[in-house]
Amino acid sequence: MPSAPDPARLSLNTATVKAQWSLAQAIEGCARHGIRGIAPWRDKLAEMGLKQAAKAIKANGLTVTGLCRGGFFTAKDWLDDNRRAIEEAHELGAQCLVLVVGGLFPGTKDLIYSRDRIRESISIMLPEARKAGVPLAIEPLHPMQAADRACVNTLEQALDICDALGDDGRSAQCALGVAVDVYHVWWDPKLRQQIERAGKKRILAYHICDWLVPTRDLLNDRGMMGDGVINLRLIRSWIESAEYSGFHEVEIFSERDWWKRDPDDVLRTMKERYKQT
Amino acid sequence: MPSAPDPARLSLNTATVKAQWSLAQAIEGCARHGIRGIAPWRDKLAEMGLKQAAKAIKANGLTVTGLCRGGFFTAKDWLDDNRRAIEEAHELGAQCLVLVVGGLFPGTKDLIYSRDRIRESISIMLPEARKAGVPLAIEPLHPMQAADRACVNTLEQALDICDALGDDGRSAQCALGVAVDVYHVWWDPKLRQQIERAGKKRILAYHICDWLVPTRDLLNDRGMMGDGVINLRLIRSWIESAEYSGFHEVEIFSERDWWKRDPDDVLRTMKERYKQT
Repeated sequence: MPSAPDPARLSLNTATVKAQWSLAQAIEGCARHGIRGIAPWRDKLAEMGLKQAAKAIKANGLTVTGLCRGGFFTAKDWLDDNRRAIEEAHELGAQCLVLVVGGLFPGTKDLIYSRDRIRESISIMLPEARKAGVPLAIEPLHPMQAADRACVNTLEQALDICDALGDDGRSAQCALGVAVDVYHVWWDPKLRQQIERAGKKRILAYHICDWLVPTRDLLNDRGMMGDGVINLRLIRSWIESAEYSGFHEVEIFSERDWWKRDPDDVLRTMKERYKQT
Repeated sequence: MPSAPDPARLSLNTATVKAQWSLAQAIEGCARHGIRGIAPWRDKLAEMGLKQAAKAIKANGLTVTGLCRGGFFTAKDWLDDNRRAIEEAHELGAQCLVLVVGGLFPGTKDLIYSRDRIRESISIMLPEARKAGVPLAIEPLHPMQAADRACVNTLEQALDICDALGDDGRSAQCALGVAVDVYHVWWDPKLRQQIERAGKKRILAYHICDWLVPTRDLLNDRGMMGDGVINLRLIRSWIESAEYSGFHEVEIFSERDWWKRDPDDVLRTMKERYKQT
């Protein structure tokens, strides 16, 4: 059995209240509800302004558990955009920059080619990220998003990339690791084994929510912890066995439900539910 | 490069025209369009009557490339139901009984437990299937269907079950193997490797269709070959490298599109598109 969930390690991924709140409001919300971590998205960050956001986050004593997101190596301007993302993550003191790597490259059905290009792109940006002190977290996305969002779809595959490009393992934290989001990986028969393989140094972020039955949309129908079928306690026990001691970040895309609620209720509920995971 | 697609190896999974045709109509449709294989679903089979269906299929010289479906070990009456499915498959001379194994067992979030129970259930029905001369084809389903339809979600996982329970490999065809449906496995980074591992004797069925972008429904939004992003030619080359020489069965669940069309047009289109795969 894992230890009791520690409220001090709860983090709000701002996507969870993206329909209701600006980043400034989300920062205030976290402070108001005693949530200590925040993971902003870059569109909201741009809206608020980087300097002002960094200042507000610092003033409220929040930890930036990740910046969402870099990656999308399928885009024409991917290198410039990822350079900006690294700068922003550095400025915010983010614990990692989350990479959603992009799906099939334009004009091809060749997954192998697309995956090779992704690995190559990560290898190109990695030295700059390392120089800036920003760890890169490859986030494997659910296989249902392989075509259009990310064709890195299992933890095993993400760790193979880390093995190929990553650190020698002697530093305290790796410059290249993974973001483990239960929504994307809960189904994987090799999940326990691959969490163990990843280990403390390479698990750079841990995202939680729930898988609803039925799921009515491939992108924006995630559930609040406890409303679905993911065995969150079991996966947390595996994460803790790997000695991960970072934040647990709540990331819920929910067109039909949570994005329509009072955001203060969302934060209250997520704190409450976290205790039961 | 694979060889040119052989029209004599095309098979119609009746789900493709399930909204329009009874089984009797589908049998006549296959005969009319020169399609040599058919894979009926059991609800339509019950509607037509087993004896009459067997007679009509034989009279038209069709090969039954699979009976859909056994499995769903999560149901209370699973053993009786699977026994009936074996009998029906035997009566039809089906090349295999397709197993959709079921998702999480009622009342649990424990995937490991559910997967153990599934393996155990297959081990119980396997001797009876072997005795009846009906090969069982485990069909790994897409991870997005893990909770409610099948928690066997990769070819690797299905083959691990075959390894644990299966034949010694000395017979010409295995009593326990897999159904490879491109829709469920196209995204898998280990697909080529696992098709090779499966080999000729354990690939009991090969199902084709396409993955649409965007996909608007988790169950009934499959595409016709050529309308999506699956590299069908490449996967066919892997299947052929494994020396699979059976039928290519078209299975398309399509609430919004193909189920609304003239079924003769559906068959014409599928024949035409098959040539391009």
